[in-house]
Order: sequence, then structure tokens, then C-alpha cells
Amino acid sequence: MKLGILGLREPRRRLQSDINPKNCQFTNNTMAEVQKTEVTMEKIVSLAKRRGFVFPGSEIYGGLANSWDYGPYGAQLKKNIKDHWWKFFVESRDDMVGLEAALIMNPKTWEASGHIGNFSDPLAECKKCHERVRADQVPLASFEGIDFNDENQTKEHALFIQTWATNPARAISTYPDSAEKYKWLCPNCKFENKIELPKSFNLMLKTQLGATEDTSNEAYLRPETAQAMFIDFPAVQQMSRKKLPFGIAQSGKAFRNEITPGNFIFRTREFDLMEFEYFFDPQKSDWNTLFEEWKQQMEQWMGAVGIDSEKTHAVEIPDGERAHYSKRTIDFEFDYPFGQKELFGLAYRGDYDLAKHEEVSGKELRYIDPETSEKILPHVIEPAFGADRAMLAIMLSAYEEEEVKEGDIRTVLRFKPIIAPVQVAVFPLMKNKEELVGKAREVYESLRKDLRVEFDDNGNVGKRYRRQDEIGTPYCITIDFDTLEDDTVTVRDRDTMEQTRIKVSELQSFLGDKLQS
Amino acid sequence: MKLGILGLREPRRRLQSDINPKNCQFTNNTMAEVQKTEVTMEKIVSLAKRRGFVFPGSEIYGGLANSWDYGPYGAQLKKNIKDHWWKFFVESRDDMVGLEAALIMNPKTWEASGHIGNFSDPLAECKKCHERVRADQVPLASFEGIDFNDENQTKEHALFIQTWATNPARAISTYPDSAEKYKWLCPNCKFENKIELPKSFNLMLKTQLGATEDTSNEAYLRPETAQAMFIDFPAVQQMSRKKLPFGIAQSGKAFRNEITPGNFIFRTREFDLMEFEYFFDPQKSDWNTLFEEWKQQMEQWMGAVGIDSEKTHAVEIPDGERAHYSKRTIDFEFDYPFGQKELFGLAYRGDYDLAKHEEVSGKELRYIDPETSEKILPHVIEPAFGADRAMLAIMLSAYEEEEVKEGDIRTVLRFKPIIAPVQVAVFPLMKNKEELVGKAREVYESLRKDLRVEFDDNGNVGKRYRRQDEIGTPYCITIDFDTLEDDTVTVRDRDTMEQTRIKVSELQSFLGDKLQS
Repeated sequence: MKLGILGLREPRRRLQSDINPKNCQFTNNTMAEVQKTEVTMEKIVSLAKRRGFVFPGSEIYGGLANSWDYGPYGAQLKKNIKDHWWKFFVESRDDMVGLEAALIMNPKTWEASGHIGNFSDPLAECKKCHERVRADQVPLASFEGIDFNDENQTKEHALFIQTWATNPARAISTYPDSAEKYKWLCPNCKFENKIELPKSFNLMLKTQLGATEDTSNEAYLRPETAQAMFIDFPAVQQMSRKKLPFGIAQSGKAFRNEITPGNFIFRTREFDLMEFEYFFDPQKSDWNTLFEEWKQQMEQWMGAVGIDSEKTHAVEIPDGERAHYSKRTIDFEFDYPFGQKELFGLAYRGDYDLAKHEEVSGKELRYIDPETSEKILPHVIEPAFGADRAMLAIMLSAYEEEEVKEGDIRTVLRFKPIIAPVQVAVFPLMKNKEELVGKAREVYESLRKDLRVEFDDNGNVGKRYRRQDEIGTPYCITIDFDTLEDDTVTVRDRDTMEQTRIKVSELQSFLGDKLQS
Repeated sequence: MKLGILGLREPRRRLQSDINPKNCQFTNNTMAEVQKTEVTMEKIVSLAKRRGFVFPGSEIYGGLANSWDYGPYGAQLKKNIKDHWWKFFVESRDDMVGLEAALIMNPKTWEASGHIGNFSDPLAECKKCHERVRADQVPLASFEGIDFNDENQTKEHALFIQTWATNPARAISTYPDSAEKYKWLCPNCKFENKIELPKSFNLMLKTQLGATEDTSNEAYLRPETAQAMFIDFPAVQQMSRKKLPFGIAQSGKAFRNEITPGNFIFRTREFDLMEFEYFFDPQKSDWNTLFEEWKQQMEQWMGAVGIDSEKTHAVEIPDGERAHYSKRTIDFEFDYPFGQKELFGLAYRGDYDLAKHEEVSGKELRYIDPETSEKILPHVIEPAFGADRAMLAIMLSAYEEEEVKEGDIRTVLRFKPIIAPVQVAVFPLMKNKEELVGKAREVYESLRKDLRVEFDDNGNVGKRYRRQDEIGTPYCITIDFDTLEDDTVTVRDRDTMEQTRIKVSELQSFLGDKLQS
């Protein structure tokens, strides 16, 4: 059984165009992307580390399987993204309320949601080196006796490969002939393994609460934030006295014991989600209209934080690939350097979750219509965002290498000013001239009440511009000797590199509007 | 060995005045407090649930041992507190940078920090009902043959009880006579147990990462946020190019497998910390001066978010009770209804942590002085805050029951406007008059760009005032029929209950300043 979109579950499906049965391996569409966009993961990872956005976790102890720490600019950028999301979807809306539920919930929650039974990946183990891998992600390496000139055979094998990438167990049962002919290639030792039914590996991280060590104390780290919005629905509705339709939003850490984490901060074992459930009365609101509205709202937010709309694809999940209770699901996918992969999700889940929790808990999770006093089970639409993936997509969208003059290339992160970790950098022209430094400090102090400002006196001004370009600072202000005469400063624009002379007294209003978007 | 202050470790010590050897139980100083402050936990817990601040986690499944969910106003209040902290200590300071490290770190981190070996509580098990309890927290119930008229005996027994509350093992070894005479009372079945050496129970929550189930994959949920600042110190220093003295700050979840969680959100198994490590060169900065400065900064922040300074006590931890490497430690304690207990901590930790991590990792964690090129191991001062405890202290400080007129008591949370979950509530006088509702919507829309505003049309205006008082909203704005004539509204002040007539066009500037503190 397939569990469907649960938060930001990675879709198992591959696009037809990704598959080339001739060589029985998925094509690597990375190279084409790279040439087009000129952003490679190597460049982003290197910049992220060099400038203190993101670097490997626990590094002095040799790290810990694809865990990452967010340095000064990265921590601030991620905070800005999360704050922007909260302001956009919660604080500034009348039909949305926030929630911060405990991360460790009663395990019955995960029984009802299906996570204990079904939230698993297919696990295969190499017979030779005992490497454990995700079966649906291994390349299918060799094959015997397939006649690729026989259209029927070719088609069946293509279907086998495609199904394998979604559901290896189903691939084996539906196309037993193919399963017998293929081998899978161990990514570690290259051994060609016979295809067998993969084991089911549950992705939840387990822990034990309390002082006794029996299974009654077993608990799970939540693999998504959504379930709390369901089980707390009646409490939150009563406390907030909201009427349908309204949403409950939550943002915070979730954990999944990924078999093969990877691709920088794209897939990690701990990650930050931002999700909400929008509850409505299916008799009074049209789900299709609401779905379209939330799709637009999501796109509007992505635009506001600087995710390149040309690299973003709203992929409709077709019948048969959606969870059985979902009438419509969209995956927002992004052109990462390693391919087109999931970014965010949007799903119409009906009343499936509330009904399940009612069934397992024996408690009523109904809404009482204030006009008719009728008890109804609301339906939900669920927009789900990943904060780490949002940050990766924003960095990839913002990254540019620009030839300033022949042979002189600057790297610039064109962040939206509202989310840039540093909004304004203030430079004294020279660091050993007390008057300049004093005046620069004064300007710095006056701005930092309302803005994120950095004081920078390291190296020559040209170098400082380049460093600020690399961390995406929209404006640099230089205090020079003229400043001491006429109280004007040079304001340099990150994107145009133009320099404007502005009166200190007019700085606030000059910058104010520009930094609000 | 005592591990000392690690983040917000609960101090084991009790004040002399808490102990009354006559009846061999700790006195309950709750009752006196209650009469003085008129805030009981029952009142706070009830208000918190009724108004959607905090309510039991996983409630439909019968909860989960003292876990709590933060509802709409609670989630917003906690976010405001955390954001204020971040702005106060990180964004608005030039000598502080942020960090967001992975929550699950390489287990060697906890070996070096001493958590694997020593981060434990003394565990006792009742011989009759097998209840497991924290030995240092059980009441000592019966005793035999103690002559309380004998001053020497009385003194020894008082010392035994006092030591027991700090370190049961030490109490037993230092005062074996007393240990033999006392029994401890099981809080569950009231059985009087013989005193025996308690077991050592490690407080870290364990989990397993990866697809193989051997101990090499064991990992821990961090019990504090501080260690990341130590192991990432060289990376963060190089990326940020900060010179000593400077600090690294982090805020986020931590986990402790408390044997007996309790007292609402005071002690829970998962909680939010806000900590920083302030690194300095002990040759160039005087630790005492820095310590005093940070003490003042902490007090200033507590004032800014509305923690009652009269209920807060800076308790110096005397020699012999501090960790061996700490020259000075202060516990900020707060008068909770259940007694004077820890709120925040401030410790001078020397170079203990960096040195330990150097030793275990074999990596250099030094700072290169830019002037002398000398490699030095910085010393640190660590201010540590708990976000949940901050919220509890803020709610307790803000809570007041006020007799408005005889027999008419209003409950009001006098939050600082800057952290109040709702800053302004906008009311149409009547909800069935379209012109009033339309105009109120207009005012609401104009304010919510910059402020946290709620639209409220439920019940009569008097009832709405009381509800807004209970959630701590500083200002309520009512749109009535006069508004339609002269474009003025009634602004009602939460604290004075005074009502002022203000022009709509002047609302922004009238409210602006008042809501900034």
C-alpha cells in the first residue's frame, strides 16, 4: 500500500523521459541543466561553506551522515524565510492560526496516520558487500535475453523500470519476467545483485521515554508536522472560535531515517517543515476553487522569497499515483542541478485524516456549524513547504556569476532584500581613520534598529563589495572624507553596481521601501 | 562527579530555609507564595487552556507524559519571545553571530562534554509498587531513634537531608548513620522504602540512525544547544571573521528524559533553549567585568519582555556547588507558585569545553590572534535561557485579577506590547451592520501590515474587552456609528481601561510608539 503525500514525502515516480530502457539506467539529466543554469552543486556548497551559510555538522568528529549546520548567514537566512512564511500565511491572515505542538506525540497518532504500518522505504542489501540501499533508487544494471527490437518486450521492460522506481514490490509482482532478467547494481561495490522482494524499512526515528525500558515507552520523532493539526483540530477551533473555512499552521523540525540522505540540504535526516491544513465544509466551499486559490498563494509566496518561477514546475499527480483519498495533488518541483525534484506539495486530502483519528481515538473531531448546529467532519487542503529546500531553491535562484569586465567575474546572490541575511553593509573607507570609523559607526547604529546591518572594515572597498555580493547584501554604504564635509554617503546597489550619493538624513527613507520586498 | 550547569540543568541544591528536620519533609512553600501573589498554577493552566495558549499534547489519545501543545496565542507568544531574544542578543549586536546546528550530533560530542558519562539523575525504585522516582526529589518519611533535642544529632540530620536533595549518593556515604535511620516515602503507594544507593539514570534520549541496527548507529537527541557552539567555534570564527571577544548564539529544541517531568511547562522532556557562548581572550578581557556585563544584559532583557524583577533572584552558586572549572555561576531563579526555582543560568566556564573537545577530537579549536599570530584557547561566558520557562515566567508576571467594581473581577495579562500575541483588536460595534463591519475591516486591514491585529465581532463589546484582557491585548479599537460620521474610533487601553477617541488617520502614529516596548 502506498501512503501518498505525507508532508514532503519524496515522490517515487519518475518521468517517462527520465528512463531510457536501451541502457537500463536512468539518464542523468544533470549535465544539461548545469550548462543551462551555470549553477552546480559544487559551487553552491563551496560558497555556502566559505561564507558561513551551511557547512557539515559535527565536522571535528568526522561529521554525521549528511547532517549540516547553518552558520551565521545561513541561520539568519533560514530564520528570515521561516518568519516571512509565518507572517505571510499566519499573522497577516484572518483565517489562519498558529500551533506549536510537541514534537514527540502519543504513538497512537502514528498508528492512525498509517506511519507505523506504511511509512517505509524498500530496502535492498548487496549480497557481496552488504551495503544497504533504497531499492527504488538503485540502477538496474544488466539484463539478459531482452530483445529491444521487439516492441512489446521493450514496452514491458520500460514499464518494469518505471514501476520499479515507484514501487519495487509492485514491479516484481506485475512484471515477473523482467524481474528475472534484470540485476541491480550495488552503488558501493558494483556487484550485480539478483532482484528480490525488498524489505520494508520504516522511516521513523524511534526513542524511549521514561525510566522503564519496555516497549510501552517507545515513542517516535515526528516524520511530519501535519498530524498535530488534525488531532488538535477541535481544541484549536474551540479556543480560537474560528469558523470554517480556516487553517492551522505549524512550522518546525521533523525527522526521517532516510536510507540514503544526500544532495546537500535537499534530503537530510532532520529538516524543517512549514505546513498548514486548511479546513472547510465541503457542502459550503468548493474544493476545486480553494485548491486553485492555495496554489496561487503558494506561487505568490515563492515569488516573494525569490524562488525562480522559471525553474519551478507545478506537476499534477495523475490518477493511480495519488493516495486513494486524494482527489487532487500537485508537486511543486524545482530544477536543482541534480535534476527536477520535489520542492513543495499541495494536496486535497478530503476528511481522510480526521476520520482516521476519530476511528482510532474514539473521540469526536467534528465541527459544529454555528447556524445549523450540525456536526460535520471538515475536509482539508494541505500546502506543505520545506524550509531547508526553500533555502536551497532560493540560493540556487539567487546565484549568478557575472562578468563585470573581461576576465573579471563576480559571484552574486540576488536575494530579495526582505529575506537577505544582511540588508545593508556599512563601510568606513579606511579602518585606521578615526573620524571615518566614528561616522560609520554612527550610521551603522542609526540603521540597525530597523534593519539587519553589518559593519565591515576589512580590506579595500572593492573586496568588501565582492564579499557582500557573495552573501547577497542589497546595499553597501561607504563613509568617506566627503561624508565628513557634506554628510553624504555612497550607496552601492548590489544588482546594478551603481553608486549613488545620498544624504545621511535621507538614508532611512531611501532604503526603507527598497528593503520591504 | 557533578557535571555542573549544562544549559538549564536543574540545580540539585535546596535552600536551607526549605528544610524542616522536625517533620523530615521539605516544607511546602507554595501556600505562602499563593496568598501573596494570587497566581496559582491552577489559574494559569486553566487560562492557558481556555484561551489557547497551552494545552495537553496528544490529548485525544490520552496525552503523553507532561507534553504540551502551544495553541494559537501560545505559539505566537513563544515566537515573539524567541524573536525578541534573537533581535536583542544577535541581530542588534555587532559582537554576536547566530548558528543553527543539527540537533542530532556525532555522539563523540557527548562523550567529550561528559554527557554520556555523567548526565544522569539518581533513580530509586519502590520495593512495593516498583514506581521509579528521582531519589533526590522523594520525601524522606520516617526515621527512628533521632533525638531532636540533641543539637548535634539534629544538625547532622539536617545536613543529611540537605545533601540528599543535592546528591543522594554523597548523603549516604557522608552520613551513613542518618541513611540507616531514614526511610523514603513512595509518592505512589506511600510505602516506606529503606534508603539504598540510587541507580544512575542517563537523561539523554537515544535513537538509531541508518539502516543497520547495531550500536555504531546509536545517536542522541541533544540535551542542550551549547556544545555546537564549541565544536563549530573555529569554523564560525573563520567564516564570520569576527575578532575576540564575540559570541555564538543558538536557539532550538533540546530533549531530556526526565524521570519526573512536571509543573506544567516548567519541566518537560522536550523544550526550547536560547543560549550563547561568549568567547574572549583571558589575557585581554577581564572575565569578571564581562560576567557583570552579561548579568546586566540578561536582566535588561528580562525587563524588556516583562519578567517581574521582584520575583527574580540572582542566586550566586557557592564554592563546592559549582562545576570545578567554573569560577562563577549565577542561577536566575523565579518565584513560581510551586516555589523559587531555576529560570535562567549564567556561567563562566573558562576554556574547559574547548579544551575537552580538542582532547577528544584531536583537532585544534584555537583562535589566531590577528596582531600577534599567537594561537589561544578562548574562555567563555555562557548565558542560558529557556524559552518555555521564559514564557511561564512572563505569564505569571503578567497575570492579574483586578476588581473593576465590587464583585466584578477581570483577569488581565499585562504583557509588554512588543511581545503580546495580539497587539490590537478591532471591533465593529455590531456584527450585523454592514457599514460598521466594512469600516472595521478597513481599519483592520490598514493596521495588520505592521502589527499583530485581530478582528473580533463576537458578543457585546464589554465581553470582547474581557476576552482581549485575558489574552493580553494592549489596545482595542471600536468602530461605532460616530466613526461613520467623523472618522474617529474608540481606543481602549488594557491597563488603565481608559477610552480615548482618536482619528483613524492618526491611529498608526498613536499606536506605533506604544507598541514598540
